[in-house]
Amino acid sequence: MIEQVKESFSKQGFMKTLGAQLISVKKGEAKIACHLNGTLTQQHGFFHAGVITSITDVACGYAALSTMPEGSDVLTVEFKTNFIRAAQTHHIIAKGHVIKTGKTLVFCEGIVTNDKQDIIFATMQATMICLNSNYRNET
Amino acid sequence: MIEQVKESFSKQGFMKTLGAQLISVKKGEAKIACHLNGTLTQQHGFFHAGVITSITDVACGYAALSTMPEGSDVLTVEFKTNFIRAAQTHHIIAKGHVIKTGKTLVFCEGIVTNDKQDIIFATMQATMICLNSNYRNET
Amino acid sequence: MIEQVKESFSKQGFMKTLGAQLISVKKGEAKIACHLNGTLTQQHGFFHAGVITSITDVACGYAALSTMPEGSDVLTVEFKTNFIRAAQTHHIIAKGHVIKTGKTLVFCEGIVTNDKQDIIFATMQATMICLNSNYRNET
Amino acid sequence: MIEQVKESFSKQGFMKTLGAQLISVKKGEAKIACHLNGTLTQQHGFFHAGVITSITDVACGYAALSTMPEGSDVLTVEFKTNFIRAAQTHHIIAKGHVIKTGKTLVFCEGIVTNDKQDIIFATMQATMICLNSNYRNET
Repeated sequence: MIEQVKESFSKQGFMKTLGAQLISVKKGEAKIACHLNGTLTQQHGFFHAGVITSITDVACGYAALSTMPEGSDVLTVEFKTNFIRAAQTHHIIAKGHVIKTGKTLVFCEGIVTNDKQDIIFATMQATMICLNSNYRNET
Repeated sequence: MIEQVKESFSKQGFMKTLGAQLISVKKGEAKIACHLNGTLTQQHGFFHAGVITSITDVACGYAALSTMPEGSDVLTVEFKTNFIRAAQTHHIIAKGHVIKTGKTLVFCEGIVTNDKQDIIFATMQATMICLNSNYRNET
Repeated sequence: MIEQVKESFSKQGFMKTLGAQLISVKKGEAKIACHLNGTLTQQHGFFHAGVITSITDVACGYAALSTMPEGSDVLTVEFKTNFIRAAQTHHIIAKGHVIKTGKTLVFCEGIVTNDKQDIIFATMQATMICLNSNYRNET
Repeated sequence: MIEQVKESFSKQGFMKTLGAQLISVKKGEAKIACHLNGTLTQQHGFFHAGVITSITDVACGYAALSTMPEGSDVLTVEFKTNFIRAAQTHHIIAKGHVIKTGKTLVFCEGIVTNDKQDIIFATMQATMICLNSNYRNET
């Protein structure tokens, strides 16, 4: 399943655009890191809320996928992000972990910190859905 | 205020990265469009949830800013996005509009559709905070 | 299906506790009303956020159920409520309506107003899950 | 501040209706318990999602209030609840704790468990606003 996560991550064009790196994945948890540069900023030069949310969504999605049956695929049903403080930093790490895996849905939480992981920039609650290998558009 | 919105939009490096265009802004409403290309995709080649969310956040933020006193700035407190269906399309439009502007907080809703605006891909609820011109990191 | 909604509503002990009334239900929409009394208040004597949320959740749930196959049951996966302004009023109406019904999940929106429906107190985004008639605890 | 929390809790008519008990409060954390009875149920006889949410909202609110300047009051801006599994239990405990207190807003998280606190029924993200002692309706 770890290999499947890495392969899926490599297919996400948008993760390349963000320069995002999958730094770890184990059953029920995934971490993604991102370095600041001028292509990722909001109007004050900090990490854009959209960047923060995007990598946290992906971290939650792969945390969820790592708990699903082999051959599954994952889609995001919904998420909510709280922006605790402006991300005035050069490096962020988003950790997603699974709260509960059901037959269909997986509940996840995400947290975004600096690289020392001692300052919280954002938190996420996310719901993921398990799709079988034959991709269905319908949820 | 419209000019202030355009100027702020142009300062967001991440909006350039997404190729996002501010297609309209009036008091209490803003629209942002985005065209699909391989730098914006998830693992199935559709618009990434993070792209959808990013432009909707910005549309809500500028809808909010357009109702604030001159010289204000806006930050996102939190948002929630529901992904109604996979965004299998070449073009998305995110519309943000204001539900209520208070002294400090502005409640917004966002909707993401195709360019004909007859298929809904996602909806957002967002809370924005009004900052005075002297930027404060603290909310 | 309308009858099924009414029967299910009547089984909810908590709706009786709130004095909530199912005032209308049609395919994809349900409305529930509630009158203020001292058993429903927060510390300033207004409608408690929990009361507002509870009837809106139920309105969304029955809006969802009304679009599901006969014999289905509905459970709430998650919801988010924005409290637009304090509910300083004697009467609230919560309307739930369906944004999209899928095979498994139904996306709903709720709005809570005064009885003239010209002041918004709260808005909700909710995700409901369709269960078959044999109740399963697992989502 | 602890006394202020207890006094405010005692003024909430709705907490009496739910039979909710403030079982602990310290700086940045509050716990509320609730016992099941037929006035608190959904259609399958379990705790209603609205009951779960109501006590968690209050736990988060008082966790937030406990970190604010003396004489402050607290209102809920918004919350999101994920319903992890049906609350098939006789007793629930909602714990609210503070993630960050700012000048105006307080970010909180809530978790709802059984009385042994080893089964999670729901999780919440909530944003609270600090009001001065002269109650203002405007946020």
